[in-house]
Amino acid sequence: MPGISNRAGKVPLSPFRKLVPYADKAKEAGKKVYHLNIGQPDILTPASAIEQFKKIPMKVIAYSPAVGITSYRKKLAGYYHKNGMPVDPDHIVVTTGASEAIQMLCFSCMDNGDELIIPEPFYANYNGFTQIADVKIRPITCSIEDGFALPSVDQFEELINEKTKGIFITNPSNPTGTFYGKEELEQLGRLVKKHDLYLIIDEVYREFCFDGQEFFSGLNLDGLEDHVIVVDSVSKRFSACGVRVGAIVTKNEEVLESITRYAKLRLSPPALGQMLSEAMLDNEEDYLREAKMEYDRRRMTVYRRLSAMPGVVSYKPRGAFYCFAKFPVKSAEHFCQWLLEEFEYHGATVMLSPGEGFYATPGLGVDEVRIAFVLNSEDLESAMDCLEEALKVYPGKLEEKKVLVEKI
Amino acid sequence: MPGISNRAGKVPLSPFRKLVPYADKAKEAGKKVYHLNIGQPDILTPASAIEQFKKIPMKVIAYSPAVGITSYRKKLAGYYHKNGMPVDPDHIVVTTGASEAIQMLCFSCMDNGDELIIPEPFYANYNGFTQIADVKIRPITCSIEDGFALPSVDQFEELINEKTKGIFITNPSNPTGTFYGKEELEQLGRLVKKHDLYLIIDEVYREFCFDGQEFFSGLNLDGLEDHVIVVDSVSKRFSACGVRVGAIVTKNEEVLESITRYAKLRLSPPALGQMLSEAMLDNEEDYLREAKMEYDRRRMTVYRRLSAMPGVVSYKPRGAFYCFAKFPVKSAEHFCQWLLEEFEYHGATVMLSPGEGFYATPGLGVDEVRIAFVLNSEDLESAMDCLEEALKVYPGKLEEKKVLVEKI
Repeated sequence: MPGISNRAGKVPLSPFRKLVPYADKAKEAGKKVYHLNIGQPDILTPASAIEQFKKIPMKVIAYSPAVGITSYRKKLAGYYHKNGMPVDPDHIVVTTGASEAIQMLCFSCMDNGDELIIPEPFYANYNGFTQIADVKIRPITCSIEDGFALPSVDQFEELINEKTKGIFITNPSNPTGTFYGKEELEQLGRLVKKHDLYLIIDEVYREFCFDGQEFFSGLNLDGLEDHVIVVDSVSKRFSACGVRVGAIVTKNEEVLESITRYAKLRLSPPALGQMLSEAMLDNEEDYLREAKMEYDRRRMTVYRRLSAMPGVVSYKPRGAFYCFAKFPVKSAEHFCQWLLEEFEYHGATVMLSPGEGFYATPGLGVDEVRIAFVLNSEDLESAMDCLEEALKVYPGKLEEKKVLVEKI
Repeated sequence: MPGISNRAGKVPLSPFRKLVPYADKAKEAGKKVYHLNIGQPDILTPASAIEQFKKIPMKVIAYSPAVGITSYRKKLAGYYHKNGMPVDPDHIVVTTGASEAIQMLCFSCMDNGDELIIPEPFYANYNGFTQIADVKIRPITCSIEDGFALPSVDQFEELINEKTKGIFITNPSNPTGTFYGKEELEQLGRLVKKHDLYLIIDEVYREFCFDGQEFFSGLNLDGLEDHVIVVDSVSKRFSACGVRVGAIVTKNEEVLESITRYAKLRLSPPALGQMLSEAMLDNEEDYLREAKMEYDRRRMTVYRRLSAMPGVVSYKPRGAFYCFAKFPVKSAEHFCQWLLEEFEYHGATVMLSPGEGFYATPGLGVDEVRIAFVLNSEDLESAMDCLEEALKVYPGKLEEKKVLVEKI
């Protein structure tokens, strides 16, 4: 039998992958499982946009242009403009979700062995995307004790060598909910300019910034037009993960040309998804305001509940719909498995993502989890009831050492 | 300014890419351009399926499972069964078009430097997909004089070395319309078994086989279950290129597992496209019969017209909706550019794909073109009128040496 490739064996599985069979078994046994492990929101996709999309006459569902449907790129540029980002349609290449955008960037801007500096914990699939492209991630460890604040510029600079092609951040961050403001971006901007690097920013959670903070896009950094590359997606913004429509946005002409070559290879991003995405950009403000308020409520619920759990270290996330928490356990993975296999509270339990898979440095995050606020507040309260009770009765619980950090 | 990658510069452009600005100019100047250069059919996507799709209640357009929506995989397996192919839903990984399928296979089954043997001319983007994955194509040249018949098994065997991972064919073939029958597949089957290789078959044109020939899928090769991997797509079958729904089908468990790892990285194939694809599998027989008859008519039109053009070498294509033709010109690329830039006949001209880009061996195909039968018969006749006239008046025309091959 012909064998698979060596590289295929190295593709990392998702942080909660090993838990899936246990969740399935728990459900088979009649337990309710609250899924806080995956970033698939329960918020409805804009109903009016779906209605409008369904009215579009469709005769031949043809390839769209490789860089995206022209009218959608125009409208998307309009959305950026409205949000203070000076983007023309020509600066946009529409992709099949942010996932494809990141893969394309790895191939377009990086060669085998090139390096990207990324603060950890980071979105776990970055490991796989870079592995495919033979790009090396150089992580800088952030700490839960200060809400995973951006490391100092010195720490970034220490890792820069002749192989470094860029710094890659997610703002606001999946998996930590950390928010980077204008000042932090300007610091990174100066650094990438000094060393002639890319600053790649995954901004898919742009709309979800809390506590009155104003989102500052990398595309607004003066003089950094040739350095900044933004990754975007409609998935989280419009609770439309399945449409698979993302984008690469940059003013670097050479990068745009290079990405376009890759885009042409796969002919077209999904046409139906683009039509719906275009419709979602009509009167989107009300929808986004509501969604943001809902995530804010959930964030405060999770924060309040985690704060009251003895021995739990967490912080108030300032963006996106995730937070990290450190539990008084030796192995969060074991705890998460135990939650599904052994534990139940009023017939229910919780599925979380063990933290380890979000770190590139071995051994980190072993007592941490990522929590996604993708359930309505009532379910979230019930899920937190489960978690609180579980931490009381978990046999592997360590002695209490409560630290709660509030970032303001 | 940070530079793009070296590999990005090596991504080949499509064979007709250089002609696009000339086509645009021709249109601006008021000329009608008959596009025979691209495989985007004009046949309507099944209207009843679109109607049914629009009736599906859509609340949250969520990620589909990474391997595809369960109900769609079941229905697709049903379609294969109906066509005599013993495929279970578990043998299917749904992909974002055949394009993603081929990329995933390169990463899952091949390492840097591994080799694939492919008869040339072949679908030009195979060059780019393999280049991304650092896989080397070893071409075997086929000849227009015998309708690009499959090379002998000896010719394949000569190229097999310790780096060879598989043989890759398209059946029926884009760009040549060549059809490989049961006997040819069995020959290749014995060879891949002997050398423990993969036999990868792009079967996206399966439904379009003419002259009463019966399509024989690689999945029907006995004892080759661990070797055969089929690439499929709804794009051409249902004239739905924009939905971006393809599939990898194999019984090799290790390959399925490896592909699934890559599939999980990008989370989900397009959900809307899958919903429509599922609807397209209702009562598809009538639609496919009609489509096949239409392509057959067009094929005969093109064949008849090319046969009557002095100095043109062609053949009767036996599948798909393409043929190759050799023109009495020194450079088909120059001729194609001249068609757009200098020529017009009753206010119209034709855009073709120069043949060179479909070959991996430098210097081949320079006097050949690919013609796609993607226009209705009337337009096709007008396009052939243009071509016939153009070949009469083209200043760079060589002396006549007419060879016409009819494959039966």
